[in-house]
Amino acid sequence: MSRYRTAAIVTVGTELVRGLAVDTNTAEIAHVISGAGIDVGETLSVADDEALLTEALRRCTASYDLVVVTGGLGPTHDDVTRQAAAEALGLGVVRDDSIVEILRPSAARHTDDRAADRIFRQADVLEGATVLPAVRGTAPGQVVRTARGSLVLLPGPPREMRPLLHALADSWRGDGVEPRMLRCTGLSESDLQMTAQDVLAGRPDIELTVLAKPGDVRVVLFDRGAGASGLDQTLHAIAATVGRPCYSTDGSSLAEVVLARARAAGLTVATAESCTGGMVGAALTDVPGSSTAYLGGVVSYSDEAKVTLLGVDPSLIAACGAVSDAVAKAMAAGARDALGADIAVSVTGVTGPDGGTADRPVGTVWFGVAGPRGVEAQLRRFAGDRATVRERAKMTALDLLRLALPGE
Amino acid sequence: MSRYRTAAIVTVGTELVRGLAVDTNTAEIAHVISGAGIDVGETLSVADDEALLTEALRRCTASYDLVVVTGGLGPTHDDVTRQAAAEALGLGVVRDDSIVEILRPSAARHTDDRAADRIFRQADVLEGATVLPAVRGTAPGQVVRTARGSLVLLPGPPREMRPLLHALADSWRGDGVEPRMLRCTGLSESDLQMTAQDVLAGRPDIELTVLAKPGDVRVVLFDRGAGASGLDQTLHAIAATVGRPCYSTDGSSLAEVVLARARAAGLTVATAESCTGGMVGAALTDVPGSSTAYLGGVVSYSDEAKVTLLGVDPSLIAACGAVSDAVAKAMAAGARDALGADIAVSVTGVTGPDGGTADRPVGTVWFGVAGPRGVEAQLRRFAGDRATVRERAKMTALDLLRLALPGE
Repeated sequence: MSRYRTAAIVTVGTELVRGLAVDTNTAEIAHVISGAGIDVGETLSVADDEALLTEALRRCTASYDLVVVTGGLGPTHDDVTRQAAAEALGLGVVRDDSIVEILRPSAARHTDDRAADRIFRQADVLEGATVLPAVRGTAPGQVVRTARGSLVLLPGPPREMRPLLHALADSWRGDGVEPRMLRCTGLSESDLQMTAQDVLAGRPDIELTVLAKPGDVRVVLFDRGAGASGLDQTLHAIAATVGRPCYSTDGSSLAEVVLARARAAGLTVATAESCTGGMVGAALTDVPGSSTAYLGGVVSYSDEAKVTLLGVDPSLIAACGAVSDAVAKAMAAGARDALGADIAVSVTGVTGPDGGTADRPVGTVWFGVAGPRGVEAQLRRFAGDRATVRERAKMTALDLLRLALPGE
Repeated sequence: MSRYRTAAIVTVGTELVRGLAVDTNTAEIAHVISGAGIDVGETLSVADDEALLTEALRRCTASYDLVVVTGGLGPTHDDVTRQAAAEALGLGVVRDDSIVEILRPSAARHTDDRAADRIFRQADVLEGATVLPAVRGTAPGQVVRTARGSLVLLPGPPREMRPLLHALADSWRGDGVEPRMLRCTGLSESDLQMTAQDVLAGRPDIELTVLAKPGDVRVVLFDRGAGASGLDQTLHAIAATVGRPCYSTDGSSLAEVVLARARAAGLTVATAESCTGGMVGAALTDVPGSSTAYLGGVVSYSDEAKVTLLGVDPSLIAACGAVSDAVAKAMAAGARDALGADIAVSVTGVTGPDGGTADRPVGTVWFGVAGPRGVEAQLRRFAGDRATVRERAKMTALDLLRLALPGE
């Protein structure tokens, strides 16, 4: 078990409380803390205001064992975290000589003396703090003891924060068990919830959470006494009951699973996208090393592109419409052949807000899959706005590639 | 001026404090509240825990004029917001008959009596509250007076929350002035900050914030007495000083500006993407009505795709490499011709983490632009990880399209 039972996360920045930036640090830190078996009771964002932040840190360090703060550690006068933390805990601030040495090259780049002085403010640490030297950027992290546990100060930029966070994670975890995650697509949140609850019935030693985004539903299992093997058994029992819609039990994304399957089978894939406009290709190429299995694709947003780049017969488009069984098949076969791939998927649909008809309302999407054994098409009707329909269409296209590839 | 001076935002959900979902409601609500001229001092997320939430609401309603809460208004036992708010304010809860009537059809769908009973919990409102009937979903919003101002309860799902939020926004704004935003690409955060500060010098009646994401930097101006015309004048003075890197002063995205320029000039555009894998096409097609100006593109992730779909001479790839001046130009010209577009942009680069060489390190990206007057190429070297390099490359490709199109 971790030596901390409860935690709070504080992000500092006027841009956050004004809604000018979406805070991603909180979710990332919360995920690591929860994974260490510590209950996060509260997360908060506070403006760059020393008085407000001091009060928030005083309250959080009094109420929670572990308090993690990001932001406000830079060199400017807006950076009030060091001072607020010192005041909240009644500690002094001292300049750390080893950090001063690390900062000297940065300070030397400034001809203005005041700018150089500001750089050195980042060497100010709370009395008795353990310093975490910066892995990226210049602002170090700090860990200081509180009456209940620890206060941790980390820099705000995610790429500077992340390496320090992960360096601390092991010390937080103790002997706690990491949560397990099962990911599905093409299944509703409530169906997955019911299935998972049925499998879990009578097991108070595992806690279940179900999360949904368009086209992507997850079950997360938290250890409440079952241990690692108990979590794994239950995870695989849920996966077996869910069946085909479950695409990963190890946290992998759908694009990662598609590419891993293709690589394992020595097969290549290609895409032909109309209404998703490149989202399927972008998701596949987001994965490092994707070029070993993904050859590329065509964004055939216009009818002409379908004809010239994918070889779709223009009379087919005239007769059936661009959003149809026949055109989806022709697009997939055209992409497979044009790119010399083993398997290609196509997407053509009406994403709105305009362009819907009685026959083909907004949300109507046809998919084609062309493989070595021929070409098939499938129709889906998605609810939601333009972004939701596009996201669901992207996930469905990736899933059709997954199902067309040999499994484990 | 608004009748509220300060505000806090509370989001409720165990999934949020565990880092299983990124909270986008806070940024959206904060943007609306700040836009109404109200200072958001603090935002927080609290687990589905009645005691913790009661304490948080007691503290926030005592410290802030306006407190907006989202989430925890659904029918399940995890939905503790109504009860916690009632307890924090010392109010009773009453079942609202008009909401009961609205919920009756949903309840009738359940054969299980307990499930039907749970549905009606959503009709429980705080004594004296103004009810905001649900526009989407079933959970209504509530507004109740506090000693300092108001407590607003809104449902958690963004699509249910949003219409109620915007219905309230006008009443919050009073006669306050909405902030103005200027967006740039290809400029550093610190350069934009200095430029904007120079223009603003000696104007305490406008407050400035600069925000940066990869390839996208924004200046936001808040009214502190300058009024609408003062903000607009300053906005345009900053835009004039920034020059070409400024792509919008009305909040439009770069993709929206590209499409608007193309439409106004009666020109069509196309894309040829290697390392961005479809991100440029996805950004353009994210804009409703993009098909009037964007014809489509090729995701030429493999060398073969560059040859067969874009007509790039294979000896060029062999001689210069796929990431080169010559291949970028050939890709752009190939996309322009294959799609019959007026202007095409191409992207080919090394995004990492592997594949870098001494000559072409990770972050090296070549862009081509093919227009009616010929073909040009440009080299950029981007810092950052794979996702950052791809994001910067996407923004640069869109910006080259913007600059190749006739301006206002």
